[in-house]
Amino acid sequence: MVSKVKRLLIGRPMKSTELADEKLSKRKALAVLSSDALSSVAYGTEQILLVLMVLGATALWYSIPISLAVLGLLTVLILSYRQTIFAYPSGGGAYIVAKENLGLNFGLVAGGSLLVDYILTVAVSASAGTDAITSAFPSLHEHRVLIALTMIAVLTVLNLRGITESASVLAYPVYMFVLAIFVLIIAGLYQVATGDVHPAAAPQYGTAVHGVTLFLLLKAFSSGCSALTGVEAVSNAIPNFKAPAERNAAKTLVMMGLILGAMFMGISVLAYAYGISPSPTETVVSQIAAATFGRGVVYYAIQTVTAAILFLAANTAFSAFPLLAFMLAKDKFMPNMFTVRGDRLGFSNGIIVLGVLSALLVVIFNGHTESLIPLYAVGVFIPFTLSQSGMMRRWITTKPSGWGLSFTINTIGMLTTLTITLIFIFTKFSQVWLVFLFVPAMIMIFKRINQHYTNIAEELRIDIHNCKPEEKGSVMVIPIAGITKVVASTIGYAKSLTDNVVCVYIGFDDESIEKMERKWEEWNPGVRLIVLRSRYRSIIKPLVKFIDTVEWKTAHNDHVTVLIPQFITKKWWHTFLHNQTGLLIRAYLFTRKDITIATVPYHLHK
Amino acid sequence: MVSKVKRLLIGRPMKSTELADEKLSKRKALAVLSSDALSSVAYGTEQILLVLMVLGATALWYSIPISLAVLGLLTVLILSYRQTIFAYPSGGGAYIVAKENLGLNFGLVAGGSLLVDYILTVAVSASAGTDAITSAFPSLHEHRVLIALTMIAVLTVLNLRGITESASVLAYPVYMFVLAIFVLIIAGLYQVATGDVHPAAAPQYGTAVHGVTLFLLLKAFSSGCSALTGVEAVSNAIPNFKAPAERNAAKTLVMMGLILGAMFMGISVLAYAYGISPSPTETVVSQIAAATFGRGVVYYAIQTVTAAILFLAANTAFSAFPLLAFMLAKDKFMPNMFTVRGDRLGFSNGIIVLGVLSALLVVIFNGHTESLIPLYAVGVFIPFTLSQSGMMRRWITTKPSGWGLSFTINTIGMLTTLTITLIFIFTKFSQVWLVFLFVPAMIMIFKRINQHYTNIAEELRIDIHNCKPEEKGSVMVIPIAGITKVVASTIGYAKSLTDNVVCVYIGFDDESIEKMERKWEEWNPGVRLIVLRSRYRSIIKPLVKFIDTVEWKTAHNDHVTVLIPQFITKKWWHTFLHNQTGLLIRAYLFTRKDITIATVPYHLHK
Repeated sequence: MVSKVKRLLIGRPMKSTELADEKLSKRKALAVLSSDALSSVAYGTEQILLVLMVLGATALWYSIPISLAVLGLLTVLILSYRQTIFAYPSGGGAYIVAKENLGLNFGLVAGGSLLVDYILTVAVSASAGTDAITSAFPSLHEHRVLIALTMIAVLTVLNLRGITESASVLAYPVYMFVLAIFVLIIAGLYQVATGDVHPAAAPQYGTAVHGVTLFLLLKAFSSGCSALTGVEAVSNAIPNFKAPAERNAAKTLVMMGLILGAMFMGISVLAYAYGISPSPTETVVSQIAAATFGRGVVYYAIQTVTAAILFLAANTAFSAFPLLAFMLAKDKFMPNMFTVRGDRLGFSNGIIVLGVLSALLVVIFNGHTESLIPLYAVGVFIPFTLSQSGMMRRWITTKPSGWGLSFTINTIGMLTTLTITLIFIFTKFSQVWLVFLFVPAMIMIFKRINQHYTNIAEELRIDIHNCKPEEKGSVMVIPIAGITKVVASTIGYAKSLTDNVVCVYIGFDDESIEKMERKWEEWNPGVRLIVLRSRYRSIIKPLVKFIDTVEWKTAHNDHVTVLIPQFITKKWWHTFLHNQTGLLIRAYLFTRKDITIATVPYHLHK
Repeated sequence: MVSKVKRLLIGRPMKSTELADEKLSKRKALAVLSSDALSSVAYGTEQILLVLMVLGATALWYSIPISLAVLGLLTVLILSYRQTIFAYPSGGGAYIVAKENLGLNFGLVAGGSLLVDYILTVAVSASAGTDAITSAFPSLHEHRVLIALTMIAVLTVLNLRGITESASVLAYPVYMFVLAIFVLIIAGLYQVATGDVHPAAAPQYGTAVHGVTLFLLLKAFSSGCSALTGVEAVSNAIPNFKAPAERNAAKTLVMMGLILGAMFMGISVLAYAYGISPSPTETVVSQIAAATFGRGVVYYAIQTVTAAILFLAANTAFSAFPLLAFMLAKDKFMPNMFTVRGDRLGFSNGIIVLGVLSALLVVIFNGHTESLIPLYAVGVFIPFTLSQSGMMRRWITTKPSGWGLSFTINTIGMLTTLTITLIFIFTKFSQVWLVFLFVPAMIMIFKRINQHYTNIAEELRIDIHNCKPEEKGSVMVIPIAGITKVVASTIGYAKSLTDNVVCVYIGFDDESIEKMERKWEEWNPGVRLIVLRSRYRSIIKPLVKFIDTVEWKTAHNDHVTVLIPQFITKKWWHTFLHNQTGLLIRAYLFTRKDITIATVPYHLHK
């Protein structure tokens, strides 16, 4: 039954050789990997305006130069990540770049921040997408947690089905969002050009505003940088691309950068031209759309695709998290299970863990994960900075021809991202201090896991030239509760293997002990019976004591095996009708004694 | 750790031979077994007045003859249960009496109703006791579920500790309640005699009231009979008494009857004399206490012990339920686990199951279990009736000297309890219809359990003269994932037992398979290696297929054993770091194949 439901949701299992078919074309990769970055357009400009509004509407014109600065940073990031793609064709996430060039600890800092960040991406995007829906349909507001959880569940299942299939489903909303925003920008600019708007509302460009500080402008700039979260996704996922993977990935990255830059700048310019101020009840994009098209069909279409792309942004994390977890697990910093490919060739465990943890965040924050956005941005810019530093180091070390330009690009990138990280920490410390707890905690966990794997490997390593399997004597102990067919077949099994078989009966009172001894004598199965008396009605303690005695007698020279006769009932509820003493004995001995425990099953037919 | 907490709560384990020490003296038995019956005084009179109030305050005088009728019924019940005690010294609950005299089905009806009834007793008493507390301290009202659950938890732990100890704790409140009610009755009667009350309020005794019907009077009578729930407890628990058990039990029963009768009649007379009408906001006992002593220290003391005894009423079920479950389990109608005595010699499983189920009822009904009271009363009177009928049958069959009187007593008892059961069903059908669902359901479950045990016994029964253990050949299959010390020690173990050992390696790709084969050749452990290729990355399916082949080759003439090498990590969280393939293989093969599965442990030291 469980298996059938699984087949229905996930699809048939796939052969390992089908792996190549699961690669992404450029068009699908753009949809799968860029929705996180592109969705930032929905709130990037607004973040800048919100900071500037502290000085009043006259300061809003600063959004244009600040947006240009963000655009510049985007260019730097795209160019430098393009370099990373060619330098690390097997997937050059911040973890790899930082580890190889700056050392393990920096790599783990980058990896740890990114892992947590992907979880935050899913939680924040699912909540924000839900907000977009519930703003349009207020009656759904009380079900917001359920809506967000459903979305996470749907994304988890789609990703468990495999990347290509989910890409087919998810490509349309991304392209529709891009189309909708471009239609909005073109129509808006046309109206501005034809003077069909109220230019009076637009604040005068270049007016000196009292109280402007560099700090405030930097804060606005860093807030605007939240529009850049997600641009690293492409460089992490190169192995998912169709061959030639690097060229395709690089093209996808540049394409994404162009689209993102155009949309972001377009929205910023329109916001300025329309003289729009941020409002707590309506998003900037919504205000522009309403001003351009009125609150009609086109407006609702734009709002709908905006909500859709916010949900899809969560999907980016579903391709990035499992891959990063796989790389960390391959390096023995995370549990081995993250390296296993599931039925559909995706890293199922990573997908499931991401789904569960982000769902937990949604539940804990009751769907209000907005307060996590600064934490999420810091979690992105820390690995950005480390990745740029790593690339800088790489150019200095390898010094390929014409490395000067590349080094300059990465240096500019590093300085900018470092500045933004610092600005985030100084201006929003109360919202991002957690990063100073969880990053060190994750690094400690990574290291302890690594230490464990190293210890185990050392302990289990075998010198194949000098260590052969060693034969020893053998004693088999069979605890029994009476004389039944199960016991007879277990004794038969034991006698087939060794002559050294002993049955143990544990009685609670004289009467039952006497009866057992008499019956055993009568049966005479050719095996010795040891009878123990348990005054405290415990089976396990006398049995363990007896096994200790056996071990002591043979001075640990014989293998001791405990054979547990166990009948297996036909219906699951029947197990409640039998004392599960066999399981108890097994569980107790298994963790405490270095002896083999064999269960000899006897399947009941009724 | 768990073990330490258990020791602290439950106390040290006790030897089976200490069982005799756990017997009850008469004084303690009265406290343990009668709190359910005695606590009924807190609401018995009120139930009668509530029905009579339909006709107005002038009809309240009928409570006196009705109370006398209840008193008469109490006398009949006490006399007839006294007969049961001597006829069934090993514990003559309704289940035993009905089964032996009326046949198995009636026995199971009685047993089933009583089991459910004990669960209801705990839930209803805990809720009612909580109500008494929250009426005095309204601020606790929102915590009522928590208070009731705490009480159930405390009772469960006390009963797990053992009967005698819990009796010491619980005897005082019972005696204090009896003392308090008698003080109230004596003081009240003194005030009535000295004319220190307002006699004007008392309705005229014997006034004809318009609209009185036999049906209404019977309904009032049956409601008053809720005061009699719990009188059967003593006759069920005879084996718990100190020797001579029967005489002590009989004396306890009579003592309880006298106390209960006196208290019930006293409260009814006082209620009439004070002219008290039932009120939705204040209990009758509370009104009498307030009228007699004013709302001072004495009043609050009475309310407190009333609350305490309602909690303790739940305790009666904690001695009755496990014993009845034990008897049903001994007859193979309930799971075997109810026959096992725990560390402190009580039937721990019965105690725990009762605690959990009643706690569930409290949670489901959110602490408002009052609506269950009629169901609970029917659940008592069905076995009452069956028990009386059983005794009637017994007198007719055995005909001891002077059986005529005994037969008459039981006949009167049977007719009365049957009438009350029918009145309950007809007047309160909407509240008791569930009984027609759960009693048949329980009987069906009892019978299916019994059938299962019979089938198993038949299937496992051995003819000890003709069935000896049979020796066969043996093949050992060791699934391995690499060459480690664990594998070497497992092969050594297998070779010690048989020459027929084969290792199985399941590879996912050509590279790993080739590498394994090469390394194996180099190692040469003297055992054949079979390499299987799994295109779907499943370990279990190829392994099962291989085992099928082995079985087919030997035509099921050899024992097939799968040896699973398993290392056991030192810290529990380390298990997450290893693929639990061994456990998966074990779980899969265990339920599906008739082969022995042995786990060869390797304890890690790091």
